[in-house]
Amino acid sequence: MTTSLRSTLDFLLYSWLQADALTVRERFADHARETFDAVLDTSERIAREKYAPFNRLVDNEEPRTETEPDGTLRVVLPQATYEARRAYAESGLLSAAHDYDIGGMQLPYTVEAAANSFFAAASISIGSNLLTSGNANLLMVHGTDVQKRVFALNEFNGRWSGTMCLSEPQAGSSLSDVATRAVPDGADFESEPLGPRYRLKGNKMWISSGDHELTENIVHLVLAKIPGPDGKLVPGVKGISLFIVPKKLVDNEGQLTGERNDVALAGLNHKLGWRGTTNTLLNFGEGKYPVGGEPGAVGYLVGKPGEGLKCMFHMMNEARIGIGMAATMLGLAGYYASLEYAKNRPQGRPLQSAGGKAGKDASAAQVRLIEHADIKRMLLAQKAYGEGALALNLYCARLVDEQHTGDAAAADEARLLLEVLTPIAKSWPSEWCLEANSLAIQIHGGYGYTRDFPVEQYWRDNRLNMIHEGTHGIQAMDLLGRKVLMENGRGLQLLAGRINDTVQRALQVPALAAHANALAGALQQVGAATKAAWATGEPTQALANAVPYMQAFGHTVLAWVWLELAMATLAVDAALAQPASAGRWGAMQFFFRYELPKIGAWLGVVSTRDTTCATLPEEAF
Amino acid sequence: MTTSLRSTLDFLLYSWLQADALTVRERFADHARETFDAVLDTSERIAREKYAPFNRLVDNEEPRTETEPDGTLRVVLPQATYEARRAYAESGLLSAAHDYDIGGMQLPYTVEAAANSFFAAASISIGSNLLTSGNANLLMVHGTDVQKRVFALNEFNGRWSGTMCLSEPQAGSSLSDVATRAVPDGADFESEPLGPRYRLKGNKMWISSGDHELTENIVHLVLAKIPGPDGKLVPGVKGISLFIVPKKLVDNEGQLTGERNDVALAGLNHKLGWRGTTNTLLNFGEGKYPVGGEPGAVGYLVGKPGEGLKCMFHMMNEARIGIGMAATMLGLAGYYASLEYAKNRPQGRPLQSAGGKAGKDASAAQVRLIEHADIKRMLLAQKAYGEGALALNLYCARLVDEQHTGDAAAADEARLLLEVLTPIAKSWPSEWCLEANSLAIQIHGGYGYTRDFPVEQYWRDNRLNMIHEGTHGIQAMDLLGRKVLMENGRGLQLLAGRINDTVQRALQVPALAAHANALAGALQQVGAATKAAWATGEPTQALANAVPYMQAFGHTVLAWVWLELAMATLAVDAALAQPASAGRWGAMQFFFRYELPKIGAWLGVVSTRDTTCATLPEEAF
Repeated sequence: MTTSLRSTLDFLLYSWLQADALTVRERFADHARETFDAVLDTSERIAREKYAPFNRLVDNEEPRTETEPDGTLRVVLPQATYEARRAYAESGLLSAAHDYDIGGMQLPYTVEAAANSFFAAASISIGSNLLTSGNANLLMVHGTDVQKRVFALNEFNGRWSGTMCLSEPQAGSSLSDVATRAVPDGADFESEPLGPRYRLKGNKMWISSGDHELTENIVHLVLAKIPGPDGKLVPGVKGISLFIVPKKLVDNEGQLTGERNDVALAGLNHKLGWRGTTNTLLNFGEGKYPVGGEPGAVGYLVGKPGEGLKCMFHMMNEARIGIGMAATMLGLAGYYASLEYAKNRPQGRPLQSAGGKAGKDASAAQVRLIEHADIKRMLLAQKAYGEGALALNLYCARLVDEQHTGDAAAADEARLLLEVLTPIAKSWPSEWCLEANSLAIQIHGGYGYTRDFPVEQYWRDNRLNMIHEGTHGIQAMDLLGRKVLMENGRGLQLLAGRINDTVQRALQVPALAAHANALAGALQQVGAATKAAWATGEPTQALANAVPYMQAFGHTVLAWVWLELAMATLAVDAALAQPASAGRWGAMQFFFRYELPKIGAWLGVVSTRDTTCATLPEEAF
Repeated sequence: MTTSLRSTLDFLLYSWLQADALTVRERFADHARETFDAVLDTSERIAREKYAPFNRLVDNEEPRTETEPDGTLRVVLPQATYEARRAYAESGLLSAAHDYDIGGMQLPYTVEAAANSFFAAASISIGSNLLTSGNANLLMVHGTDVQKRVFALNEFNGRWSGTMCLSEPQAGSSLSDVATRAVPDGADFESEPLGPRYRLKGNKMWISSGDHELTENIVHLVLAKIPGPDGKLVPGVKGISLFIVPKKLVDNEGQLTGERNDVALAGLNHKLGWRGTTNTLLNFGEGKYPVGGEPGAVGYLVGKPGEGLKCMFHMMNEARIGIGMAATMLGLAGYYASLEYAKNRPQGRPLQSAGGKAGKDASAAQVRLIEHADIKRMLLAQKAYGEGALALNLYCARLVDEQHTGDAAAADEARLLLEVLTPIAKSWPSEWCLEANSLAIQIHGGYGYTRDFPVEQYWRDNRLNMIHEGTHGIQAMDLLGRKVLMENGRGLQLLAGRINDTVQRALQVPALAAHANALAGALQQVGAATKAAWATGEPTQALANAVPYMQAFGHTVLAWVWLELAMATLAVDAALAQPASAGRWGAMQFFFRYELPKIGAWLGVVSTRDTTCATLPEEAF
């Protein structure tokens, strides 16, 4: 698996995105392709040695709890998870993109994302270190110096891990309804060096890595509401603030005080997949572990009161691209597994012409699965989905680098493009790499349906990605309800400009001209549908078919990515003489011939503002 | 769940298919709608009491084995499985469609299929009685009188159960490669009253219900090859014969002799889903249980040597419609579960107009999930897939009745229509009701990903249906490679004739005229693609995109079914005043607006005989 993945990454990073050109920038001046490659080598090795061999184990031995004599629930995880975690932390990848002076490597985010792809492919659920670096990254932007030093740095160095605590049992996707309360802790609450000190009470649901003993401490970032003078919570997201709530209390030097905070594990969720990571219900401040004799979890305010969601979005956007990458790597893992199977399993015989019908020569030896057209179709679909999604996600990572290190105009453009592309980078792989995993099962036949092969687990693991970090529906509303409208539609115009640039270049290549025209047509259709959806200005009509809109938008973006990849392929191998070049070319052809034509059906209902679904009365279902 | 299902069945059986009109036929003369309803009532009750409550249990406690002191592997199943099986057998449903004089009810197959739908919805994997009746039904057609009396009747009365043993570890879908050998057992092998006696040696894989102690005995129907005079097996399917191989030997009166046959359980497959049913690897004739001191499983020939596959196809076609029904009922079970959840779960707020953008009033109370347009879209999709698939499967069941009890011309037409529709009845629900289950998970959000709700299990269970009883690829080759060509394309013409009849009638209804034209256009596209696929007469080109062809064919058939249902709805409720009528109308609209437009993308590659996939060299993947 890793050989194919590595050569694909090399092509995307260097032949397409020219990641090595980033080394001319001051921040990356110490780097060269060699140092990038060394990071990829290390990641590949750790993933191969510490993650991949244990992917089935962590699924079979899902997290469970034991009850201590004092009533505390203790999480039990396999030893392999501890070892994988340790190896990852020791690699330095947790702070790879950060400054040298805090122990980082000042690596481009593009390279960091590529490095992390090995862990996602090897074992997505052991490899959930995403939240720890996202948590610490947020604190580096919004935290005080003390918060950065005490909390973020101890996450980067691997001592502690991090979570994000948004959802509550009564409010899944609806953050307006957060009911966790935070009240000032004593009259001197503002003089606390770690940040204004509050006491939190409430329940948080779906908290990944919410409890475990993999690290000495856990840094929860918690959304809660500070009641107004009337004691009531402000409705909506405007009332939400952000708090650091450590599992164990710490002093100003980041040493454990020995006192436990009032955060209790209430239970583990038992999931369909992604079982190597705990997913928890946490009770904050219920009084199970009183602090100073009082119930209430001690939390330190981050940023200003009422700006919690704004801070958290910093982490959520990063997390959304991370989810897109997770879905992508599961898709590719299934592709590699089914490719290997198809190359080795003899099954059936080739078709022969027999009087205009299909016949077979039963006395001939069986051929291998990969020699059948329909198996190749299922393999090429997986390749087109998985490699296309990987390219899109790395493109987004490259935009992150541009946003942080480009000149002002380029940085602003990158920021806005990211706003528009993030819902696609998250949703498209979640949907299509899940489909890829289903095709990987199908290629295995009955064996694919057993737990003796890895593909059923990839499919189960991948099903989460359309749900967490904003469901498919939420992403679609974000795209059509916000992102394509923001700044007077400039984000959409920027994207259209880039797509049109690609079209113009591709029109110069005879073998790509037809596809270039098809992409231009698709872009025009998406643009027209966007206008038609909003023609009446009525959100209920515009957004009634937001998901089909996002599907068509995503397929158009991926067609653009594939056209880009085709040109990058020609640039390094004009004759398509290398098998890898022929493969990329084939995947591009597949996408234009089998996939892009699907957008018409999706956009039809968007353009007509079809309300077949929205207006059907409840009792008619 | 059962209320909605029952009213849908009533509509399909009586308002659409006019199943009660069958009672004018001699075979069904004793029946009336009341007796049909009584069978449905009983089925609904047993499914509710003995199946539904234990669906999660049989998933959690999947079959396992214990080793007896003599080395025999004994299968351990939950007690609930025994009780469900007993209640089902006592209901008489195993022989519902058979003659009174063998203890049957002479029920139309249409009604039997409808009755079985309750069990499939309640617990597909407890409810695997399909193979036992299919096995016995085959013997009623191809067995001798003694074989019928000894084996089939003891399956119908519930004493014994049945299997079909086709696949082998080295030959999944490829029956040509069956390597199980059957040699005559002694010089007097032809004088055995139970049928010519052979000894079988070989391994059979993926055998559902292949071993258990639910019944006193198990009747295996086994495909094997009788070696020629040179001791070699005939290549291809022509060399295959069919044998009855009981787990325990029996005398001519159907009493156990006390001697075990040489059939050994080698192991259980550990599956992704469908865990209430054992799935086994069986070793025939390895000598673990020698018979008369000799290794070799005793088997009795059914039909003529070399005609085994022909006999088995009788069972396979029935099984394929059964699989379509299984997939359908899993789809509907997920629909009902997610509908219930959406009606009760408060989450989020309605969209409001806010200066041409989407806003929400955070101070308003939350609304329930079903009040959101995208949730309704996901519900209506499930309804359109599930109820449409149920209608198609019952239509096929009605054709079976026509084939068996119609006049000669009608029976022949029904036979040929069934040939064409069987691949669709099997494949379409397998694909789209799986998608329905994914939507049911999505509606549940994070909760849908946990094992605390039933939908993730439906999705896992349903994933099998594109694999067993002929994979999706096999069905597609059958459709485009055989069924649309057979008898000079008369089957396809018959189907087109029926679709055109529906179109003509719908054109008279103003509200349906546009859809009627769309269906006529779709039919024309499918017809043109069929011709274009075979234009060169080259099977490798024609069949390179057999699966996309089947997808488009299936969507066209389902659009036809929905147009039929719309007219049947108008016939009973012209004003669409009843909620159920409005719901069916909405599902029909959904299908025409959101689904039928998809066929263009699928047919494009069929019509151009696109070989992007087929010609990509292996090393390019």
